[in-house]
Amino acid sequence: MAEAKVTDPVEILRNLIRCPSVTPEEGGALAYLDALLSNAGFTTHRVRLTGPDTPDVENLYARFGSKGPNLCFAGHTDVVPPGDAAQWRFPPFEGAIQDGLIYGRGAVDMKGGVSAFIAAGLDVAAAHGHDGDSESLPGSISFLLTGDEEGPAINGTEKLLRWLADRDERIDHCVLGEPTSRAALGDMVKIGRRGSLSATLTVHGKQGHVGYPHLAENPIPGMVRLLAGLDGAPLDGGSAHFQASNLEVVSVDVGNAAFNVIPAEAVARFNIRFNELWNPVTLKAEIERRLASAAGNMVHFSLAFEPRSSDSFLTAPGSFVDLVVESIAATLGRRPELSTTGGTSDARFIKDYCPVVEFGLVGTTMHAVDESTPIDEVAALKRVYADIVARYFAAFGR
Amino acid sequence: MAEAKVTDPVEILRNLIRCPSVTPEEGGALAYLDALLSNAGFTTHRVRLTGPDTPDVENLYARFGSKGPNLCFAGHTDVVPPGDAAQWRFPPFEGAIQDGLIYGRGAVDMKGGVSAFIAAGLDVAAAHGHDGDSESLPGSISFLLTGDEEGPAINGTEKLLRWLADRDERIDHCVLGEPTSRAALGDMVKIGRRGSLSATLTVHGKQGHVGYPHLAENPIPGMVRLLAGLDGAPLDGGSAHFQASNLEVVSVDVGNAAFNVIPAEAVARFNIRFNELWNPVTLKAEIERRLASAAGNMVHFSLAFEPRSSDSFLTAPGSFVDLVVESIAATLGRRPELSTTGGTSDARFIKDYCPVVEFGLVGTTMHAVDESTPIDEVAALKRVYADIVARYFAAFGR
Repeated sequence: MAEAKVTDPVEILRNLIRCPSVTPEEGGALAYLDALLSNAGFTTHRVRLTGPDTPDVENLYARFGSKGPNLCFAGHTDVVPPGDAAQWRFPPFEGAIQDGLIYGRGAVDMKGGVSAFIAAGLDVAAAHGHDGDSESLPGSISFLLTGDEEGPAINGTEKLLRWLADRDERIDHCVLGEPTSRAALGDMVKIGRRGSLSATLTVHGKQGHVGYPHLAENPIPGMVRLLAGLDGAPLDGGSAHFQASNLEVVSVDVGNAAFNVIPAEAVARFNIRFNELWNPVTLKAEIERRLASAAGNMVHFSLAFEPRSSDSFLTAPGSFVDLVVESIAATLGRRPELSTTGGTSDARFIKDYCPVVEFGLVGTTMHAVDESTPIDEVAALKRVYADIVARYFAAFGR
Repeated sequence: MAEAKVTDPVEILRNLIRCPSVTPEEGGALAYLDALLSNAGFTTHRVRLTGPDTPDVENLYARFGSKGPNLCFAGHTDVVPPGDAAQWRFPPFEGAIQDGLIYGRGAVDMKGGVSAFIAAGLDVAAAHGHDGDSESLPGSISFLLTGDEEGPAINGTEKLLRWLADRDERIDHCVLGEPTSRAALGDMVKIGRRGSLSATLTVHGKQGHVGYPHLAENPIPGMVRLLAGLDGAPLDGGSAHFQASNLEVVSVDVGNAAFNVIPAEAVARFNIRFNELWNPVTLKAEIERRLASAAGNMVHFSLAFEPRSSDSFLTAPGSFVDLVVESIAATLGRRPELSTTGGTSDARFIKDYCPVVEFGLVGTTMHAVDESTPIDEVAALKRVYADIVARYFAAFGR
């Protein structure tokens, strides 16, 4: 296999798209990368993670070099389902290229990013040889790849990080290759994301006839009181890098069709996106406090938090963020905005181990029919990642 | 036909139960009573009332005598559906008698009451003859019977009363034979009932993603605000004869299954039971005022009142109420409570023409499977009605 060929990120991307790795299926994607990286001198670990009530998931960790610091690129090879394949311009697992775009499920989210950093890593390995010469690298470069990011995210990054820690495998800095660019490659990096907490609130009453309210107990006034108390005051005023935490009641439901019946129960569901001023434990306590205070001893309610909450993360601007920004600016001629908006990512797990910044392709078509990305931008992204590696070892290498 | 036979209310009741007069079907019930009353010397009018978007309904007005005062007994021969007839102990339209109880749909609500007052009226006619001798009665006795009380109540009592007024047919006092007794025959009369007004409130927002609340407009906080404003203060403190008017929000619905979506719309439905301090016009104005005040210019909402509201009625204690109470006490040895609780009745229409009091059987089994009433109580109810007639003409007759 010629060296120039394996470091073409578009070829890697095309091969990855051809692996139908819809969560939790490995689809051949990690086996392919494992072979590629092993051949290039990486030490690889295929880690099958399991848990009760969730499917087993394949994951991969690969490292080149044994010294610190260890710069890790993280990502996932699993993809969301393609939906109705007949609606796609090209088959979703083919990797067709037309007019400079490569099409396929995962092209953007995030086999494109994975291909770009794998290609950059293979270049590093090629430059440093792979028969003991890896020690000439002034640190290590590693890849942390999961097959469970689009699914429950239980048997993926979080457990893989714990598995590494149990083996005293240390990661010093991390770049997560999620599609963070908004309109043009390089216009945005994510240095943080808000956490997410969801819950269901039920107010219990007693059914009865509207004409005899003293024999019934309408749960709706109690629900109105609880929701007013829950949402009555801002959770915070935002922080230096985050907008304010925000609670949205997303549904209230009773389902009573009769005007003459007082219902037995009212159910509300809410979601909170919170910044680094909270964590799930402190936030749950605040929610419980607000509800108890609004309820007094008048309203009988129960509260159930969704089992999976997502913590926030923030990598405060500093040397590592600056390094990523400078690589983008130098390579693409564009200075990215430092953003903390949007949904959650696996960075919420990585932040417990090391600073993490997210940077990747333009996300416009992700999860959509005809997901696609310009092949030039995949190549440009590889150059950014390669520049990050070079600057990283210049700055932090030993 | 022997005289003793026609005045047995249980025989009339049995014949009425055998008419399957589920609203809006006449089922032979009014035709049967028409024949009975005509033969006894009553002047009868079968009135078929019609309206747009509602079924045509048969009604009956019958009068014995032409002078005033005219004491009218009002009621309905239509019944609610029997449900699953297989669950009944006896066929619901058979009128089976066992262990002193007569079974059948309408036995209580209210063919029992109708049979009792018809039997009492036939006794009066028999006592005064029916070939011109009706003028020996110091007034008139009449029956106002509808086939549209359990249905929309549009082509029934309300229009029949207007039909009578258009013919200068005057009713001076009215006894409505609905089942008002609670635990024992004679323990309760209704001298009033609250009115009823229903409405649907919709708060309009803008759908969006929970992670980007500034791009959406959640209708739920607005709904909470409106409901708090709507239900925030009592409508009144009650009146001499009525409990306080009461608003119940009977449902709030959004129907959003996703924790990460801000919904576009929230819908609430409420019903108000109101006393004589309000009427539908003043009450609607108050509701609109409260909502507008709670909304400010922050909440975009729409409000739709149900087309049919029910006015309240009150016949203040006085000579007519006293007369009914004395008849019950003298006949049954029990002084009834004067009540204004419970649902609505056709008295809400009658009160616009004359004082009206409701008195009838024990309502426990009404609308239920195995609806039934003791035959002794049907006979006792006939004696109460007969006593009311006698006292009425003694007090008010000319």
